[in-house]
Amino acid sequence: MTDGRGLFITLEGGDGAGKTTQSALLEEWLRARGRTVVRTREPGGTEVGVLIRDIVLHHRGEIAARAEALLYAADRAHHIEHLVRPALERGAVVIQDRYLDSSVAYQGAGRVLGRDEVRELSLWATEGLLPDLTVLLDLDPTAARERLDADDKPFDRLEAEASAFHDRVRAEFLALAAAEPGRFLVLDASRSPADLATDIQGRVQALWDARERGGTVGGAD
Amino acid sequence: MTDGRGLFITLEGGDGAGKTTQSALLEEWLRARGRTVVRTREPGGTEVGVLIRDIVLHHRGEIAARAEALLYAADRAHHIEHLVRPALERGAVVIQDRYLDSSVAYQGAGRVLGRDEVRELSLWATEGLLPDLTVLLDLDPTAARERLDADDKPFDRLEAEASAFHDRVRAEFLALAAAEPGRFLVLDASRSPADLATDIQGRVQALWDARERGGTVGGAD
Repeated sequence: MTDGRGLFITLEGGDGAGKTTQSALLEEWLRARGRTVVRTREPGGTEVGVLIRDIVLHHRGEIAARAEALLYAADRAHHIEHLVRPALERGAVVIQDRYLDSSVAYQGAGRVLGRDEVRELSLWATEGLLPDLTVLLDLDPTAARERLDADDKPFDRLEAEASAFHDRVRAEFLALAAAEPGRFLVLDASRSPADLATDIQGRVQALWDARERGGTVGGAD
Repeated sequence: MTDGRGLFITLEGGDGAGKTTQSALLEEWLRARGRTVVRTREPGGTEVGVLIRDIVLHHRGEIAARAEALLYAADRAHHIEHLVRPALERGAVVIQDRYLDSSVAYQGAGRVLGRDEVRELSLWATEGLLPDLTVLLDLDPTAARERLDADDKPFDRLEAEASAFHDRVRAEFLALAAAEPGRFLVLDASRSPADLATDIQGRVQALWDARERGGTVGGAD
Protein backbone atom coordinates (compact mmCIF):
# COMPACT_ATOMS: atom_id res chain seq x y z
CA MET A 1 0.00 0.00 0.00
CA THR A 2 1.33 3.45 -0.78
CA ASP A 3 2.09 5.92 1.97
CA GLY A 4 0.34 9.00 0.64
CA ARG A 5 -3.17 9.47 -0.71
CA GLY A 6 -2.28 8.70 -4.33
CA LEU A 7 -2.60 5.40 -6.13
CA PHE A 8 0.36 3.39 -7.41
CA ILE A 9 -0.49 1.22 -10.43
CA THR A 10 2.10 -0.87 -12.25
CA LEU A 11 1.81 -2.73 -15.55
CA GLU A 12 3.78 -5.91 -16.04
CA GLY A 13 4.23 -8.52 -18.75
CA GLY A 14 6.58 -9.37 -21.60
CA ASP A 15 7.52 -6.93 -24.33
CA GLY A 16 4.76 -6.82 -26.94
CA ALA A 17 1.97 -7.52 -24.41
CA GLY A 18 0.48 -4.04 -24.80
CA LYS A 19 1.62 -2.26 -21.62
CA THR A 20 2.16 1.07 -23.42
CA THR A 21 -1.28 0.99 -25.04
CA GLN A 22 -3.03 0.17 -21.77
CA SER A 23 -1.05 2.82 -19.86
CA ALA A 24 -2.17 5.44 -22.38
CA LEU A 25 -5.83 4.32 -22.25
CA LEU A 26 -5.83 4.31 -18.46
CA GLU A 27 -4.24 7.76 -18.32
CA GLU A 28 -6.90 9.10 -20.69
CA TRP A 29 -9.71 7.57 -18.62
CA LEU A 30 -8.29 8.97 -15.37
CA ARG A 31 -7.74 12.47 -16.76
CA ALA A 32 -11.33 12.53 -18.05
CA ARG A 33 -12.31 11.96 -14.39
CA GLY A 34 -10.19 14.89 -13.20
CA ARG A 35 -7.37 12.84 -11.69
CA THR A 36 -3.77 13.99 -11.66
CA VAL A 37 -1.74 11.33 -13.46
CA VAL A 38 2.00 10.70 -13.61
CA ARG A 39 2.93 8.16 -16.28
CA THR A 40 6.41 6.75 -15.94
CA ARG A 41 8.51 3.67 -16.52
CA GLU A 42 11.44 1.61 -15.32
CA PRO A 43 14.16 1.65 -16.21
CA GLY A 44 14.62 5.23 -17.34
CA GLY A 45 11.97 7.28 -15.53
CA THR A 46 14.47 9.92 -14.34
CA GLU A 47 17.50 11.70 -15.77
CA VAL A 48 19.85 9.34 -13.88
CA GLY A 49 17.59 6.46 -14.92
CA VAL A 50 18.00 7.26 -18.61
CA LEU A 51 21.77 6.84 -18.21
CA ILE A 52 21.28 3.52 -16.39
CA ARG A 53 18.69 2.32 -18.95
CA ASP A 54 21.18 3.00 -21.70
CA ILE A 55 23.70 0.68 -20.01
CA VAL A 56 21.33 -2.20 -19.19
CA LEU A 57 19.44 -2.25 -22.46
CA HIS A 58 21.91 -1.01 -25.04
CA HIS A 59 25.45 -1.84 -23.92
CA ARG A 60 27.06 -3.94 -26.68
CA GLY A 61 29.17 -6.21 -24.50
CA GLU A 62 28.02 -8.79 -21.97
CA ILE A 63 26.96 -7.57 -18.51
CA ALA A 64 27.32 -9.81 -15.45
CA ALA A 65 23.87 -11.02 -14.34
CA ARG A 66 24.27 -9.63 -10.81
CA ALA A 67 25.43 -6.29 -12.20
CA GLU A 68 22.32 -6.16 -14.38
CA ALA A 69 20.06 -6.82 -11.38
CA LEU A 70 21.89 -4.15 -9.35
CA LEU A 71 21.60 -1.59 -12.14
CA TYR A 72 17.82 -2.11 -12.29
CA ALA A 73 17.67 -1.75 -8.51
CA ALA A 74 19.73 1.48 -8.67
CA ASP A 75 17.40 2.94 -11.28
CA ARG A 76 14.44 1.94 -9.11
CA ALA A 77 15.85 3.43 -5.89
CA HIS A 78 16.39 6.80 -7.53
CA HIS A 79 13.09 6.75 -9.43
CA ILE A 80 10.98 5.92 -6.38
CA GLU A 81 12.69 8.47 -4.12
CA HIS A 82 12.81 11.34 -6.61
CA LEU A 83 9.65 10.85 -8.68
CA VAL A 84 7.15 8.23 -7.51
CA ARG A 85 6.93 8.87 -3.75
CA PRO A 86 6.65 12.66 -4.17
CA ALA A 87 3.89 12.18 -6.76
CA LEU A 88 1.96 9.78 -4.50
CA GLU A 89 2.33 12.19 -1.59
CA ARG A 90 0.77 14.92 -3.76
CA GLY A 91 -2.19 12.58 -4.33
CA ALA A 92 -1.44 11.68 -7.97
CA VAL A 93 -2.16 8.40 -9.67
CA VAL A 94 1.17 6.95 -10.81
CA ILE A 95 0.90 4.61 -13.82
CA GLN A 96 4.19 2.81 -14.19
CA ASP A 97 5.46 0.55 -16.95
CA ARG A 98 7.40 -2.25 -15.10
CA TYR A 99 8.42 -2.40 -11.44
CA LEU A 100 9.86 -4.94 -9.01
CA ASP A 101 7.90 -7.89 -10.44
CA SER A 102 9.81 -7.41 -13.71
CA SER A 103 13.10 -7.72 -11.82
CA VAL A 104 11.97 -10.88 -10.07
CA ALA A 105 10.78 -12.37 -13.39
CA TYR A 106 13.66 -11.27 -15.64
CA GLN A 107 16.66 -11.33 -13.30
CA GLY A 108 15.38 -13.72 -10.62
CA ALA A 109 13.79 -16.37 -12.85
CA GLY A 110 15.11 -15.47 -16.34
CA ARG A 111 18.75 -15.08 -15.23
CA VAL A 112 18.34 -17.66 -12.44
CA LEU A 113 19.70 -15.34 -9.74
CA GLY A 114 17.11 -16.34 -7.13
CA ARG A 115 13.73 -14.67 -6.92
CA ASP A 116 13.82 -14.01 -3.16
CA GLU A 117 17.20 -12.31 -3.36
CA VAL A 118 16.16 -10.14 -6.30
CA ARG A 119 12.92 -9.20 -4.57
CA GLU A 120 14.81 -8.29 -1.38
CA LEU A 121 17.13 -6.11 -3.45
CA SER A 122 14.17 -4.15 -4.85
CA LEU A 123 12.53 -3.83 -1.46
CA TRP A 124 15.77 -2.48 0.00
CA ALA A 125 16.08 -0.08 -2.94
CA THR A 126 12.55 1.29 -2.47
CA GLU A 127 12.22 0.99 1.31
CA GLY A 128 9.46 -1.53 0.78
CA LEU A 129 7.10 0.30 -1.57
CA LEU A 130 4.53 -2.06 -3.14
CA PRO A 131 1.93 -1.04 -5.76
CA ASP A 132 -1.78 -0.75 -4.91
CA LEU A 133 -2.52 -2.57 -8.15
CA THR A 134 -0.39 -4.53 -10.59
CA VAL A 135 -1.90 -5.33 -13.98
CA LEU A 136 -0.28 -8.39 -15.54
CA LEU A 137 -0.80 -8.49 -19.30
CA ASP A 138 -0.20 -12.17 -19.91
CA LEU A 139 0.74 -13.28 -23.41
CA ASP A 140 2.32 -16.36 -24.91
CA PRO A 141 5.95 -15.43 -25.77
CA THR A 142 5.52 -16.68 -29.35
CA ALA A 143 2.57 -14.35 -29.91
CA ALA A 144 4.51 -11.49 -28.28
CA ARG A 145 7.46 -12.15 -30.57
CA GLU A 146 5.18 -11.94 -33.63
CA ARG A 147 3.93 -8.56 -32.46
CA LEU A 148 7.51 -7.33 -31.94
CA ASP A 149 8.58 -8.66 -35.36
CA ALA A 150 5.73 -6.66 -36.92
CA ASP A 151 7.34 -3.53 -35.44
CA ASP A 152 10.52 -2.64 -37.22
CA LYS A 153 12.55 -1.72 -34.15
CA PRO A 154 15.78 -3.60 -33.41
CA PHE A 155 15.61 -5.86 -30.31
CA ASP A 156 17.24 -4.66 -27.08
CA ARG A 157 19.44 -6.94 -24.93
CA LEU A 158 16.53 -8.60 -23.12
CA GLU A 159 14.17 -8.89 -26.08
CA ALA A 160 16.93 -10.75 -27.93
CA GLU A 161 17.12 -13.55 -25.31
CA ALA A 162 16.17 -17.10 -26.32
CA SER A 163 12.62 -18.40 -25.98
CA ALA A 164 13.38 -20.57 -22.92
CA PHE A 165 14.28 -17.34 -21.12
CA HIS A 166 10.96 -15.73 -22.04
CA ASP A 167 9.06 -18.87 -21.03
CA ARG A 168 10.67 -18.69 -17.56
CA VAL A 169 9.80 -15.00 -17.32
CA ARG A 170 6.14 -15.61 -18.18
CA ALA A 171 5.83 -18.50 -15.73
CA GLU A 172 7.34 -16.35 -12.99
CA PHE A 173 4.94 -13.46 -13.61
CA LEU A 174 2.02 -15.88 -13.28
CA ALA A 175 3.48 -17.37 -10.09
CA LEU A 176 3.91 -13.88 -8.60
CA ALA A 177 0.30 -13.03 -9.44
CA ALA A 178 -0.94 -16.28 -7.90
CA ALA A 179 0.98 -15.51 -4.69
CA GLU A 180 -0.55 -12.03 -4.33
CA PRO A 181 -4.07 -12.17 -5.81
CA GLY A 182 -5.11 -9.02 -3.94
CA ARG A 183 -2.48 -6.89 -5.65
CA PHE A 184 -2.60 -8.44 -9.14
CA LEU A 185 -5.12 -8.26 -11.95
CA VAL A 186 -4.17 -10.90 -14.54
CA LEU A 187 -5.52 -10.32 -18.04
CA ASP A 188 -5.26 -12.33 -21.24
CA ALA A 189 -3.38 -9.84 -23.42
CA SER A 190 -4.56 -11.44 -26.66
CA ARG A 191 -7.97 -9.81 -26.07
CA SER A 192 -8.87 -6.48 -27.68
CA PRO A 193 -7.28 -3.33 -26.18
CA ALA A 194 -10.73 -1.84 -25.50
CA ASP A 195 -11.89 -4.91 -23.53
CA LEU A 196 -8.68 -4.95 -21.51
CA ALA A 197 -9.03 -1.24 -20.76
CA THR A 198 -12.58 -1.78 -19.45
CA ASP A 199 -11.39 -4.49 -17.05
CA ILE A 200 -8.56 -2.29 -15.77
CA GLN A 201 -10.89 0.68 -15.27
CA GLY A 202 -13.30 -1.51 -13.33
CA ARG A 203 -10.56 -2.59 -10.95
CA VAL A 204 -9.27 0.95 -10.43
CA GLN A 205 -12.82 2.13 -9.72
CA ALA A 206 -13.21 -0.67 -7.17
CA LEU A 207 -10.01 0.45 -5.43
CA TRP A 208 -11.39 3.96 -5.04
CA ASP A 209 -14.78 2.78 -3.92
CA ALA A 210 -13.14 0.62 -1.28
CA ARG A 211 -10.92 3.46 -0.15
CA GLU A 212 -13.93 5.77 0.20
CA ARG A 213 -15.66 3.15 2.33
CA GLY A 214 -12.48 3.04 4.44
CA GLY A 215 -11.69 -0.54 3.48
CA THR A 216 -9.00 -1.94 1.22
CA VAL A 217 -9.03 -3.86 -2.01
CA GLY A 218 -5.66 -5.12 -3.14
CA GLY A 219 -2.24 -3.93 -1.99
CA ALA A 220 -3.02 -5.14 1.51
CA ASP A 221 -1.95 -8.76 1.24
CA MET B 1 40.53 -15.87 0.71
CA THR B 2 40.61 -15.93 -3.07
CA ASP B 3 39.54 -19.03 -4.96
CA GLY B 4 42.45 -19.37 -7.37
CA ARG B 5 46.18 -19.32 -6.81
CA GLY B 6 46.54 -15.55 -7.26
CA LEU B 7 46.61 -12.88 -4.57
CA PHE B 8 43.94 -10.24 -4.15
CA ILE B 9 45.24 -7.02 -2.57
CA THR B 10 43.04 -3.96 -2.06
CA LEU B 11 44.06 -0.44 -1.04
CA GLU B 12 41.62 1.64 0.98
CA GLY B 13 41.54 5.09 2.55
CA GLY B 14 40.29 8.58 1.78
CA ASP B 15 41.15 10.47 -1.39
CA GLY B 16 44.61 12.00 -1.06
CA ALA B 17 45.93 9.21 1.19
CA GLY B 18 48.35 7.93 -1.46
CA LYS B 19 46.63 4.80 -2.79
CA THR B 20 47.73 5.43 -6.38
CA THR B 21 51.37 5.97 -5.41
CA GLN B 22 51.47 2.81 -3.27
CA SER B 23 49.71 0.75 -5.95
CA ALA B 24 52.36 1.80 -8.47
CA LEU B 25 55.26 1.06 -6.09
CA LEU B 26 53.82 -2.36 -5.21
CA GLU B 27 53.29 -3.21 -8.87
CA GLU B 28 56.90 -2.29 -9.65
CA TRP B 29 58.19 -4.41 -6.74
CA LEU B 30 56.08 -7.40 -7.78
CA ARG B 31 57.06 -7.19 -11.45
CA ALA B 32 60.75 -7.06 -10.48
CA ARG B 33 60.10 -10.42 -8.75
CA GLY B 34 58.55 -11.91 -11.91
CA ARG B 35 54.94 -11.78 -10.77
CA THR B 36 52.03 -11.19 -13.14
CA VAL B 37 50.22 -8.10 -11.89
CA VAL B 38 46.78 -6.71 -12.75
CA ARG B 39 46.27 -3.19 -11.41
CA THR B 40 42.68 -2.04 -11.36
CA ARG B 41 40.19 0.11 -9.49
CA GLU B 42 36.58 0.54 -8.47
CA PRO B 43 34.49 2.10 -9.70
CA GLY B 44 35.49 2.01 -13.35
CA GLY B 45 37.75 -1.04 -13.80
CA THR B 46 35.80 -2.32 -16.84
CA GLU B 47 34.12 -0.82 -19.89
CA VAL B 48 30.69 -1.06 -18.22
CA GLY B 49 32.28 0.23 -15.02
CA VAL B 50 33.53 3.39 -16.73
CA LEU B 51 29.92 4.20 -17.67
CA ILE B 52 28.77 3.57 -14.08
CA ARG B 53 31.69 5.56 -12.63
CA ASP B 54 30.71 8.50 -14.79
CA ILE B 55 27.22 8.46 -13.26
CA VAL B 56 28.21 8.06 -9.59
CA LEU B 57 31.11 10.50 -9.60
CA HIS B 58 30.20 13.07 -12.21
CA HIS B 59 26.41 13.32 -12.53
CA ARG B 60 25.45 16.95 -11.88
CA GLY B 61 22.14 16.34 -10.11
CA GLU B 62 21.50 14.63 -6.78
CA ILE B 63 21.49 10.81 -6.70
CA ALA B 64 19.42 8.93 -4.12
CA ALA B 65 21.73 7.39 -1.49
CA ARG B 66 20.46 3.86 -2.08
CA ALA B 67 20.84 4.30 -5.85
CA GLU B 68 24.45 5.36 -5.30
CA ALA B 69 25.16 2.27 -3.18
CA LEU B 70 23.51 0.03 -5.80
CA LEU B 71 25.51 1.59 -8.63
CA TYR B 72 28.78 0.87 -6.79
CA ALA B 73 27.60 -2.70 -6.19
CA ALA B 74 26.70 -3.10 -9.90
CA ASP B 75 30.15 -1.88 -10.94
CA ARG B 76 31.68 -4.32 -8.45
CA ALA B 77 29.64 -7.32 -9.59
CA HIS B 78 30.69 -6.85 -13.19
CA HIS B 79 34.31 -6.03 -12.34
CA ILE B 80 34.81 -9.07 -10.12
CA GLU B 81 33.14 -11.51 -12.54
CA HIS B 82 34.75 -10.22 -15.73
CA LEU B 83 38.20 -9.07 -14.60
CA VAL B 84 39.26 -9.93 -11.04
CA ARG B 85 38.21 -13.58 -10.68
CA PRO B 86 39.64 -14.57 -14.09
CA ALA B 87 42.95 -12.85 -13.21
CA LEU B 88 43.14 -14.60 -9.82
CA GLU B 89 42.38 -17.93 -11.48
CA ARG B 90 45.31 -17.35 -13.86
CA GLY B 91 47.50 -16.85 -10.77
CA ALA B 92 47.98 -13.08 -11.07
CA VAL B 93 48.36 -10.62 -8.23
CA VAL B 94 45.45 -8.18 -8.42
CA ILE B 95 46.19 -4.75 -6.91
CA GLN B 96 42.92 -2.90 -6.58
CA ASP B 97 42.21 0.72 -5.65
CA ARG B 98 39.05 0.53 -3.44
CA TYR B 99 36.73 -2.41 -2.84
CA LEU B 100 33.85 -3.31 -0.54
CA ASP B 101 35.33 -1.58 2.51
CA SER B 102 34.99 1.72 0.64
CA SER B 103 31.29 1.06 0.11
CA VAL B 104 30.77 0.25 3.78
CA ALA B 105 32.69 3.41 4.80
CA TYR B 106 31.26 5.85 2.23
CA GLN B 107 27.71 4.60 1.71
CA GLY B 108 27.18 2.66 4.94
CA ALA B 109 28.72 5.12 7.41
CA GLY B 110 29.09 8.30 5.31
CA ARG B 111 25.55 8.19 3.87
CA VAL B 112 24.18 6.44 6.98
CA LEU B 113 22.58 3.59 4.99
CA GLY B 114 23.62 0.88 7.45
CA ARG B 115 27.00 -0.81 7.25
CA ASP B 116 25.69 -4.38 7.48
CA GLU B 117 23.22 -3.85 4.65
CA VAL B 118 25.84 -2.24 2.41
CA ARG B 119 28.30 -5.02 3.17
CA GLU B 120 25.69 -7.68 2.37
CA LEU B 121 25.00 -5.92 -0.92
CA SER B 122 28.67 -6.14 -1.89
CA LEU B 123 28.95 -9.75 -0.79
CA TRP B 124 25.90 -10.63 -2.90
CA ALA B 125 27.38 -8.72 -5.84
CA THR B 126 30.71 -10.57 -5.65
CA GLU B 127 29.49 -13.96 -4.42
CA GLY B 128 31.46 -13.38 -1.24
CA LEU B 129 34.92 -12.56 -2.55
CA LEU B 130 37.15 -11.04 0.17
CA PRO B 131 40.72 -9.78 -0.37
CA ASP B 132 43.75 -11.66 0.93
CA LEU B 133 45.15 -8.33 2.11
CA THR B 134 43.65 -4.88 2.52
CA VAL B 135 46.05 -1.98 3.04
CA LEU B 136 44.37 0.91 4.83
CA LEU B 137 46.23 4.18 4.27
CA ASP B 138 44.92 6.15 7.20
CA LEU B 139 45.12 9.93 7.05
CA ASP B 140 43.45 12.77 8.92
CA PRO B 141 40.80 14.23 6.53
CA THR B 142 42.20 17.75 7.00
CA ALA B 143 45.65 16.63 5.86
CA ALA B 144 44.07 14.74 2.95
CA ARG B 145 42.15 17.83 1.93
CA GLU B 146 45.38 19.86 1.88
CA ARG B 147 46.95 17.30 -0.44
CA LEU B 148 43.92 17.41 -2.75
CA ASP B 149 43.90 21.23 -2.75
CA ALA B 150 47.55 21.17 -3.84
CA ASP B 151 46.43 19.20 -6.90
CA ASP B 152 44.52 21.36 -9.31
CA LYS B 153 41.80 18.83 -10.19
CA PRO B 154 38.15 19.71 -9.53
CA PHE B 155 36.51 17.67 -6.73
CA ASP B 156 34.17 14.83 -7.66
CA ARG B 157 30.78 14.30 -5.93
CA LEU B 158 32.23 12.44 -2.93
CA GLU B 159 35.36 14.51 -2.47
CA ALA B 160 33.13 17.59 -2.27
CA GLU B 161 31.22 16.25 0.78
CA ALA B 162 31.48 18.12 4.11
CA SER B 163 34.16 17.28 6.67
CA ALA B 164 31.74 15.48 9.05
CA PHE B 165 31.13 13.00 6.22
CA HIS B 166 34.87 12.38 5.79
CA ASP B 167 35.31 12.01 9.56
CA ARG B 168 32.63 9.28 9.60
CA VAL B 169 34.31 7.57 6.64
CA ARG B 170 37.73 7.53 8.36
CA ALA B 171 36.29 6.22 11.63
CA GLU B 172 34.49 3.45 9.76
CA PHE B 173 37.64 2.36 7.90
CA LEU B 174 39.46 2.08 11.24
CA ALA B 175 36.56 0.12 12.76
CA LEU B 176 36.55 -2.29 9.81
CA ALA B 177 40.30 -2.83 10.18
CA ALA B 178 39.95 -3.45 13.92
CA ALA B 179 37.24 -6.06 13.25
CA GLU B 180 39.41 -8.00 10.76
CA PRO B 181 43.03 -7.59 11.85
CA GLY B 182 44.11 -10.65 9.84
CA ARG B 183 43.02 -9.11 6.56
CA PHE B 184 44.00 -5.47 7.20
CA LEU B 185 47.34 -3.70 7.33
CA VAL B 186 46.77 -0.22 8.76
CA LEU B 187 49.44 2.36 7.94
CA ASP B 188 49.87 5.99 8.93
CA ALA B 189 49.69 7.61 5.49
CA SER B 190 51.54 10.75 6.63
CA ARG B 191 54.80 8.72 6.57
CA SER B 192 57.08 8.77 3.52
CA PRO B 193 55.95 6.79 0.44
CA ALA B 194 59.16 4.73 0.53
CA ASP B 195 58.61 3.68 4.16
CA LEU B 196 55.00 2.76 3.49
CA ALA B 197 56.02 0.72 0.45
CA THR B 198 58.53 -1.24 2.55
CA ASP B 199 55.85 -2.15 5.09
CA ILE B 200 53.44 -3.26 2.37
CA GLN B 201 56.12 -5.37 0.67
CA GLY B 202 56.93 -7.02 3.98
CA ARG B 203 53.33 -8.04 4.47
CA VAL B 204 52.94 -9.37 0.93
CA GLN B 205 56.13 -11.40 1.34
CA ALA B 206 54.77 -12.82 4.60
CA LEU B 207 51.58 -13.88 2.80
CA TRP B 208 53.59 -15.83 0.24
CA ASP B 209 55.88 -17.36 2.80
CA ALA B 210 52.84 -18.54 4.76
CA ARG B 211 51.22 -19.92 1.63
CA GLU B 212 54.38 -21.86 0.74
CA ARG B 213 54.43 -23.35 4.21
CA GLY B 214 50.79 -24.34 3.60
CA GLY B 215 49.49 -22.02 6.31
CA THR B 216 47.60 -18.79 6.04
CA VAL B 217 48.27 -15.22 7.05
CA GLY B 218 45.34 -12.89 6.66
CA GLY B 219 42.22 -13.40 4.56
CA ALA B 220 41.24 -16.35 6.72
CA ASP B 221 39.46 -14.55 9.53
